[in-house]
Parts: sequence; structure tokens; C-alpha cells
Amino acid sequence: MNEDAYGELISSLARESDKSIVLLVMDGVGDVAGRGGRTPLAAAGTPNLDALAGAGACGLLVPIATGVTPGSGPAHLGLFGYDPVLYQVGRGVLSALGLEFPLEETDVAARLNFCTVDEAGNVADRRAGRIPDEENRRVIGKILSALELPAGVEVFFQTEAEHRALLVLRGEGLDDDVGDTDPQATGVPPLAPDRPPHERSRTAKMAAGLIGQVGKILADEPRANMILARGFAKHPDWPKFAERYKLKPAAVAGYPMYRGVARLVGIPVVAQPTTAEGVCAEAAKAIADHTFVFAHFKYCDKAGEDGDFAEKVRRIEEMDSALPKLLAAGPDVLIVTGDHSTPCSLKAHSWHPVPVVMRAPYLRGGQAARFDELACRAGEIGTITSKELLPLAMAHAGKLEKFGA
Amino acid sequence: MNEDAYGELISSLARESDKSIVLLVMDGVGDVAGRGGRTPLAAAGTPNLDALAGAGACGLLVPIATGVTPGSGPAHLGLFGYDPVLYQVGRGVLSALGLEFPLEETDVAARLNFCTVDEAGNVADRRAGRIPDEENRRVIGKILSALELPAGVEVFFQTEAEHRALLVLRGEGLDDDVGDTDPQATGVPPLAPDRPPHERSRTAKMAAGLIGQVGKILADEPRANMILARGFAKHPDWPKFAERYKLKPAAVAGYPMYRGVARLVGIPVVAQPTTAEGVCAEAAKAIADHTFVFAHFKYCDKAGEDGDFAEKVRRIEEMDSALPKLLAAGPDVLIVTGDHSTPCSLKAHSWHPVPVVMRAPYLRGGQAARFDELACRAGEIGTITSKELLPLAMAHAGKLEKFGA
Repeated sequence: MNEDAYGELISSLARESDKSIVLLVMDGVGDVAGRGGRTPLAAAGTPNLDALAGAGACGLLVPIATGVTPGSGPAHLGLFGYDPVLYQVGRGVLSALGLEFPLEETDVAARLNFCTVDEAGNVADRRAGRIPDEENRRVIGKILSALELPAGVEVFFQTEAEHRALLVLRGEGLDDDVGDTDPQATGVPPLAPDRPPHERSRTAKMAAGLIGQVGKILADEPRANMILARGFAKHPDWPKFAERYKLKPAAVAGYPMYRGVARLVGIPVVAQPTTAEGVCAEAAKAIADHTFVFAHFKYCDKAGEDGDFAEKVRRIEEMDSALPKLLAAGPDVLIVTGDHSTPCSLKAHSWHPVPVVMRAPYLRGGQAARFDELACRAGEIGTITSKELLPLAMAHAGKLEKFGA
Repeated sequence: MNEDAYGELISSLARESDKSIVLLVMDGVGDVAGRGGRTPLAAAGTPNLDALAGAGACGLLVPIATGVTPGSGPAHLGLFGYDPVLYQVGRGVLSALGLEFPLEETDVAARLNFCTVDEAGNVADRRAGRIPDEENRRVIGKILSALELPAGVEVFFQTEAEHRALLVLRGEGLDDDVGDTDPQATGVPPLAPDRPPHERSRTAKMAAGLIGQVGKILADEPRANMILARGFAKHPDWPKFAERYKLKPAAVAGYPMYRGVARLVGIPVVAQPTTAEGVCAEAAKAIADHTFVFAHFKYCDKAGEDGDFAEKVRRIEEMDSALPKLLAAGPDVLIVTGDHSTPCSLKAHSWHPVPVVMRAPYLRGGQAARFDELACRAGEIGTITSKELLPLAMAHAGKLEKFGA
């Protein structure tokens, strides 16, 4: 890892206090001009968010760096103040954390997709027809009952959802120098995990052997007759959120991925609501005995991924209606933002900066008239990177000492 | 020290010329919305600063990094183009420079507070009732007449003001691996300077012995019966301002701290006025035979620290009235800004970006209508870090070569 000078500076200045910070993430809320030249945020009726924008400080967040589209993991690490370029983790570990798999320090985890290969061994469907969870579980049982394990190694398979699963290898001396086997295309065979530059890894060879066995065990399956593995990784040894910032953190998140990234930095999950109402209610509750609450609302991103402008507007309005419950709980600093933009026209995550509003003491006034991409551009926070947001909130909450005399 | 890539780039491009740059620092001038929703700068009648803002380039300076509140030393180093996170110095050295103590290369300096300890040895008053300078001098005389020195070491005590003093140790082989003894709290004893991780430092052991002696010598004093020491440090070996930028610098500063930080980078002090009139008059004079003049006006910060909004407005207006004298001297580039914000509502330094205006050739127009936090937000300079300001001024003064062919 490169040097995390800014993060270490903030950490060195952090001081404990009972002031509370709430970070409400409307996943993928940022967008670009769509229907009528407006973004979903601009088109939505959001009296509560607009009032917040008028009284709070507004701005835009660059999730990673100019032009860089983040995955959910890095986007959230940035919001937690961990530079996502310095703090990188494999997909396997994120999956394990999301499934609440008790990953040990020496374990190596990988994300699996069941897939369909044709008679020539080429990938025909990278998602095995999106088999139901049930079939996923059945196929995993079949693998486990027939798999011959290498000496001294335990192997875990765990159903995630549809065609997705988790693979964990446990044993002494394992490494994560293992190649992805997903060719990211159909009509070609899976890649070998022990191809160069991974040919000297004992674990890569072991993975190759196990995947070969799985292919034979599943040969008679109509759909899930092979696995594709990616993101082999060990749990990173990073500074824990609570120690780094002298905060007592809690996560309120209904989806595995976000629980996983919270746990990755040691933020315990205290509730798993998925509705806007539920997220705001649980976050409001969590303030009582935590000084940092991360609350995650998924559905804006889902609507963006589906390219459904009207649904995204509706989800934004849903959160706006739920917001008073959270406001009433009176966090000392309240942030509402997204982890990244998910423009409906792109049907995917994007690099566009994300609007942010912060209710805090010691502001300068002259803020945005509403909470949207355009109004936030001229706000007091300006355009900063996501990793600067938590330090700014800590400053407003009186949680950072002066630097130097 | 970490890599100072930007500073070294600027240094490599610097070229000598007779154009002049004046940096006028209104200490702590930035603020947040206070009386009537306005900041002191917005509330003050400042025709000269406003005219400057209308004709010049405006912007905001982040002193250190987002969310970080600077002390005076780091804040000024940033304005001098030295990244404050890379160029860190102990408080003792700053005190020594401020008192014009002729610090030698191998000296170790520390900042002292006289304090009151109770019979159990616990700190009862960290400032010894803010004893007058006279009592401070008397007590130092008492220490010096009774202190037994370790072999080969000279010890200097110098009165600063009230309860504050400077300690300097001189001798071969001294180090600055010495712990602060100020516990930053009352009801607990002073800390040992040679506690871990300082237990292997010969100088720390020596400091412990000297402080022990001082406690005995002052045992019968009613108020100043002990000392607290912090910021043990040696003079850093940094690039000198004149060489780094090919500028002939001068400092006009009435307060020790700011003279000290100027000398730290080799800027000689040519005058020590404290009034706005005096600062502008002396800076105007200094332009005649210097190409960079740092002029410091303290009282905006003092008013902010006192939480006195009306006084801060008055001090700002005082500087505005004095400004024509400096403008008339015709510096090629004139900057007016602060080192940091000192909001009246916080009564302390803060992390808020600081308004800046620069009168210079080659501007784009469409500037701020007045000089305050809100208007400057939309200005030509944008929001930059303090360390970028001097390079920008040098560019405008034609003092930077083109980079590359």
C-alpha cells in the first residue's frame, strides 16, 4: 500500500466525543440530464431534502478520481475515509463479508458464478441461466459430497443468490496469487487460475485442481455445469474505523454487499432494513448509542441500473418522505449523499460526481436552493473527493484537534 | 520528509526578476455566518477591499487539507509555499524564533509554561494564574542561580509573556526525542519527559533531571512552582525561501510567532508594526528593495478568539482604511488573505477555507463584487490549498519559467 498521508493526518488529530455523525447513502443517486433535461433528483418532489440543502452545506463528491467509475466496495471505502486507490480488496473477501462468513486471517476467498459450458468446454452462459437459489444450494451439496480435498485444506462453498456463490479455502500457507477464471466472454473456455504470472502459487494450482473436479462432478447438470471464480483474496489488515477515527460506528444496511464493506473496516451491522422508512427509523435508533451511523438505501441504484427514470424519481421521493424521522433524531452532523452516480441512461455506475448535503453547525450560508446535481455544484463544500467527506464532518462535529501550534 | 514534488517543481521553474509580490495576511480573517446571517467580512464596510475584489482575482484557500484546523505555524508555512504536512516543526523551535533567540544547529528548544502544582504534585493550574512577565523573569532568575548543570551542557531560560517561557539546551550530541510533560489536564501530575518511547534518549533523561531540580528550586513559590515543557525540537534543515523561489524576501510582523515562522524559512524581519496603518506603511516601504514582502496583521484573529464579532468587523475596517497606502506603493502582485479562519462563534481557529484576493495582471474578469467568504467562492482562483498561492502569484509576476519545451 502506498502512503496514506491524509488518512494518517486525520487519524492523528481525531479525538473522542459524544457528538454524532450520520452518513445516509442513497446508493447511485447521482444521474445525468434525462427526461425534460432534468436529473431524477431535479425532477423529484423532495421538500425535505431541499430544505436540508437550503440550510446545510452542499457540494459534489468525486468518488475515486476524475473520470473513474467505482464499484460499490471502493465507493463506500471512500465515504468511510479510506482512499480507495490505496485500500484495495479482492471481490472474494467482499462476498465473504456480505454473507457473514466467519473469514479467518489465513483464509483465501473467491467469488463464484455458476456457468454453463458447452461440449467443447467453452462458456455458453456466464450466469447458468440465473438459476434459482434452491438449485444453487442443491448443486453445492452435490459438489461437497463428491469433492476430494487436498491434504490439510478445508474448502467452503456458500450460496449467495441466483448463480452466485462464495468459495473459501482454509489451511496453512495459502496465498491469494490466483488468477480469475471468468473469461468475461462466451464462446471461450474458462481461464486457468494458475496461468502466468500465477504459475508459482501453490494455491493457484490447488484451485485449478478443485475447479477441474467441480467440472467433472457437475458434468451432468443442465445449467450449472461449471464454476467461474474471481477476486481470490485474503482479509486485509487495515486500520479499523473505530480506532482510526475514535468513533463508535454502526451500520444500518439491508444488502450483503454493504454490510460486507462496513465490516471490512470493522463497522458492526446493527440493523438490516431495506425500505426508506426502515433505514431512517433504524438509523435514528442507532444514534442513541453510536457516534457514527452509516445508513444505506439501495433502491435508487437499482432503478438506475434498470434504466427506470420514473422508478428512480419514486425511490428518491420515498427517501425524502422518510427523512423527517431521521432529522428528528437530531444527529449533530447529518450527511445525505450517494456512493456514486448510476445514470438511468447508462444503466450502470458512472464517474459523475455525486451531490452531497451536510447539516452542521458553523456554516457560511448562501446555500443551494434544492438538492440536485446542479444546485450542489455551487455549494459551500465545493467539489471534493469522497475520502475528504468524513474528515469534514468530523471537523464540524468538533472531533478533530488543531494541527500544529 | 516525504516528497515535496510540487514545491520542487516550482523551485525548479523559479527565475529572478525585479517584480514585487506582497502577501498581506489578515490573521484569522475567515469566519462563518454570525450576526444577521453574515460573516464579519460581509458585515464590514470595506470599500477598498471590495474594489480590490472587483478588479482582482478571488478565491478560497484550504490551509492544510479538508477538515484540518491549522495552528499559526503550519498555516503560514502553507502561505509561504511549504506543504505544512511535509514541513513540520516542534513548538520549541517556533518559540525560539519568535523570541529571536539565536538558536544553533545542535540546540534543542522547548516551549515552557509555568504552572501551579498542589501538595500531591498534581497540576492545579496549567498557567500558574497567568503570572505577569515580571514574576516570570524573577522566577527564571531564581532557577538560573540555583540550577546545577549536567557536564558539557548549557541551559537557557527566556521569558516569553505571562506564564510562557522558552527552554534551550545546548551541547554536543543532544537529540529531540523528548516527551511533552504537559498533561493537558489538571488534577494529574506532569508527565515524565523520558517515558516510553523516549526512554533511550539521553536528552530526555537530562530534561527529567533539570525539571526535577526546577520543582525543588520553586517549591516555595505561591503560583509558579513548576514548569510544563512541550515541543522539544531542533531547528529543521529546510530549503531557504530566497533560494527556493529566487525571491528577495522581507517580513513585516509585530508578533513573535509570525516573525518566528518567517525566520524559520529564512525570511528576515525588517519591521515590527502591529497597527493596520503601521503594517501597510512598512510593507509599502519594504517593496522598494525586496521582491517578496510578507506583512502580518494580528487583530482579526484576536477578535475571533475572543468571540467578539463587532471588534472583528472593526479590525477588518481598520485594515481596509489603511490599505490605500499599500496599494499606492504599487506592488506588481498584491495578495490579501488570511492564514486560517477564526470564527467568532467557535472562538478558535477552524478548518474553513479562507477568502483570498489577488491584484495582478492577466486576469479573466467577472470577479466577486466584494471581499467576503461567499463572493470569493465563485472567484477566478477557485478553491486551492494555501501552498499553491505563492506559485500562482509568482506566475502572475512573471517569475516562473515554462515547464518543458
